[in-house]
Amino acid sequence: MTPEEFRQRGKRVIDWIADYMERVESLPVLSRAEPGEIAAMLPDTPPERPEPWDAILADLDRVVLPGVTHWQSPTFFGYFPANSSPEAILGDLASSGLGVQGMLWLTSPACTEIETRVLDWLADLIGLPEPFTSRSGVGGGVIQGTASEAVLVAMLAARDRMDGNAGLTAYGSTQAHSSVVKAAKIAGVGRERVRLIETDDALAMDPAALARAIDDDRAAGRTPFFVCATLGTTSTGAIDPVEEIGRVLDRPGAARPWLHVDAAWAGAACVCPEHRQMLGGVERADSFNFNPHKWLLTTFDCSALWVRDRGPVLDALSITPEYLRNRASDAGAVIDYRDWQVPLGRRFRALKLWFVIRGLGAEGLREHIRRSISLASDLETRLRADPRFEVPVPRSLALVCFRLRGEDARTERLLERVNASGEAFFTHTRIEDRDRPGETRLVIRAAVGGVWTRAEHIDRAWRALDREAGRASL
Amino acid sequence: MTPEEFRQRGKRVIDWIADYMERVESLPVLSRAEPGEIAAMLPDTPPERPEPWDAILADLDRVVLPGVTHWQSPTFFGYFPANSSPEAILGDLASSGLGVQGMLWLTSPACTEIETRVLDWLADLIGLPEPFTSRSGVGGGVIQGTASEAVLVAMLAARDRMDGNAGLTAYGSTQAHSSVVKAAKIAGVGRERVRLIETDDALAMDPAALARAIDDDRAAGRTPFFVCATLGTTSTGAIDPVEEIGRVLDRPGAARPWLHVDAAWAGAACVCPEHRQMLGGVERADSFNFNPHKWLLTTFDCSALWVRDRGPVLDALSITPEYLRNRASDAGAVIDYRDWQVPLGRRFRALKLWFVIRGLGAEGLREHIRRSISLASDLETRLRADPRFEVPVPRSLALVCFRLRGEDARTERLLERVNASGEAFFTHTRIEDRDRPGETRLVIRAAVGGVWTRAEHIDRAWRALDREAGRASL
Repeated sequence: MTPEEFRQRGKRVIDWIADYMERVESLPVLSRAEPGEIAAMLPDTPPERPEPWDAILADLDRVVLPGVTHWQSPTFFGYFPANSSPEAILGDLASSGLGVQGMLWLTSPACTEIETRVLDWLADLIGLPEPFTSRSGVGGGVIQGTASEAVLVAMLAARDRMDGNAGLTAYGSTQAHSSVVKAAKIAGVGRERVRLIETDDALAMDPAALARAIDDDRAAGRTPFFVCATLGTTSTGAIDPVEEIGRVLDRPGAARPWLHVDAAWAGAACVCPEHRQMLGGVERADSFNFNPHKWLLTTFDCSALWVRDRGPVLDALSITPEYLRNRASDAGAVIDYRDWQVPLGRRFRALKLWFVIRGLGAEGLREHIRRSISLASDLETRLRADPRFEVPVPRSLALVCFRLRGEDARTERLLERVNASGEAFFTHTRIEDRDRPGETRLVIRAAVGGVWTRAEHIDRAWRALDREAGRASL
Repeated sequence: MTPEEFRQRGKRVIDWIADYMERVESLPVLSRAEPGEIAAMLPDTPPERPEPWDAILADLDRVVLPGVTHWQSPTFFGYFPANSSPEAILGDLASSGLGVQGMLWLTSPACTEIETRVLDWLADLIGLPEPFTSRSGVGGGVIQGTASEAVLVAMLAARDRMDGNAGLTAYGSTQAHSSVVKAAKIAGVGRERVRLIETDDALAMDPAALARAIDDDRAAGRTPFFVCATLGTTSTGAIDPVEEIGRVLDRPGAARPWLHVDAAWAGAACVCPEHRQMLGGVERADSFNFNPHKWLLTTFDCSALWVRDRGPVLDALSITPEYLRNRASDAGAVIDYRDWQVPLGRRFRALKLWFVIRGLGAEGLREHIRRSISLASDLETRLRADPRFEVPVPRSLALVCFRLRGEDARTERLLERVNASGEAFFTHTRIEDRDRPGETRLVIRAAVGGVWTRAEHIDRAWRALDREAGRASL
């Protein structure tokens, strides 16, 4: 394809995306494809000769769309949002066009320096303390692919800092993300060496239980090395008390475990001062992570990780073969982000975040968060006003968990029917039944926060819930 | 930004990229920015209000371009190429527009099923044996971010398969990529547990030396668990003998170590039948990886990993919390790629690879590889014909390593001056001096393979080398 052909064809792809943005709300949110159905539309063998561009583009509609669950639909409320705003799409497009590989400062100084500065901006925007910014000269931010990689990088730094100690043991709450256990498996710590600490009624980690677990492990000769506090758990959005957890770790007597704060989803809300109380005590943390690719309008992948001291991260991940050596790196005058991550190569991901922050401004970011929370609050109000429903845990920011009163099977059928209707998409979780210890109850999660979600879409989702809940067979 | 504004602004970004493609050869390849120079052009604080789109777009020229080392320049010969073809850029753009997160089959069946099929196509295109395809029902392919992640995933599968064994030990040649050692650090195996096996005159791993190392380790009670064979080393493009290495591992007596083949760069050449001899013995491997984002025209990131048995990978990486459970996954009827990788979330990366293969056809891919190799061969011919230069190791595919005869300092100055000229960009490595054991010699690497590189660009690079080599002060 020549640059001139790219110019023409590229504009058609832009039109296709603009059209998609305009019509996505009319498409069934959850894909109706059966296993193997999309594959069956694809040839068994690759084409020998180039295919016409028209055929390729047409297959976006013919093959791809029927197999897409529309994460950008304004009535997608599953998992957490994965915002792909127009601003971010264009920043990412520019990144593809430049085709820069930013493993070293030298391989594109702008890729590194814009990333460093934009992560300082973002730290300021959410109210992270100064030591996490690059201005400190010791800490700083880096874009990881996902929160899973962020927790892994933090755990590796923590592990190697404690190197040589027996029985390394990590901690998170029973509600912590599965990536904590996955990181422990990857790091060779072992999943059986992750203690899942009990939670309080709000499903937040109980610091006293953490203290007991740490003391017990130390007494047994094990080495507590890593604690993950979660701000906004995946299941219900519970907020662990970072301040109290930090105090538990600060007790004198033994090497202090690394405190990682996983705010993958909820961290975005801290662009609004009224939600920053969750950051209380964050100055006691060693690392902090949240995903602009979840709820802050930045196309996947963009996970922001800040560390208070980059030293242990570099110690854990830096290896310099001859073919990567260069004067700027050898002089220590620059940041080489390859040493802050698992992969070597890296894309110019800061561009999309830069475009988002500049295109929307701080006030645009706050508006997006506040609208999401307000819409979730509207949905909660309707649920609480309807005697068929219950809201068994408090709404957390823009996440509402609800169920039909009575047997789980009714809630399960409701979820299936609403999702099958194509009008909205929700996912589920299970939470402990406080009245019947050891038993769990199924709840539907409504995570509000799409780029295009407005009041009318909450209306539509509510109408679908209301209708299906009223069906006699439920 | 509304969809309509996106339509207009998106077309301007497409124009900007098309213009960039047309003028990139006129820009100095290596960025001339000094440390801190790009950062100094950025405000200290983020904007409170949205910035005008014109200002944002203008900064691509004002701030970004001066800080970019132009990987897409036709005279970029550093490291390995990181091809970003027009076809791939448009596939990646469509992916951003859809904003799909493909962690589970359910979260977008097309994202999973197109990936599976396109990796089967790619396996067929490069001549990988049937057991590596999904058609086998046991093996199959997956897109990783980078080759570093691919080797890590393979090592984790290998490690957990041998779980409980003492002294896990990994092997690669002295020329293996640094990611093997990095993976061992991450996996908790430890860098001191990676044996770097000596090489022959062509810098390929010596299978007899590997056999001795394995025997010695077993005799000492250690457990050889992982061997990385490299097809196309980063330094000089050396090709390890997979067949002989496989035979060493197949000897009876103890648990067979996992054999991973890292063909990150050179694997792309296997789209041409005349280069497939390097795959001899690959049926003995457990995993095979190459990066379409290097030399196969697919925008970063896109690293293809195939395994002969997906079981150990899933055992090492699968964790299923309640909120990710669904009927299709529970029934085992589908692939959930989150269990094949370190991260949980994943982008729809198969789209860009699908666009590349369909847009170019198998013949277009072969043409790109053959042109790259032919151009590298032209450069080699000129170097060998000039008595000032030497080519101390054989050209490997499209990688030529050369130096000025005599002291390293002369080659170093030549490299610096050519890079400073902006006309071309090369990187360096060091290779052992066979005449003086223990000493190394500096060589310049010319890795040909850009999307836009043609004969005239080899001419320009040669003129720069010729001119600078002729300067009296060298």
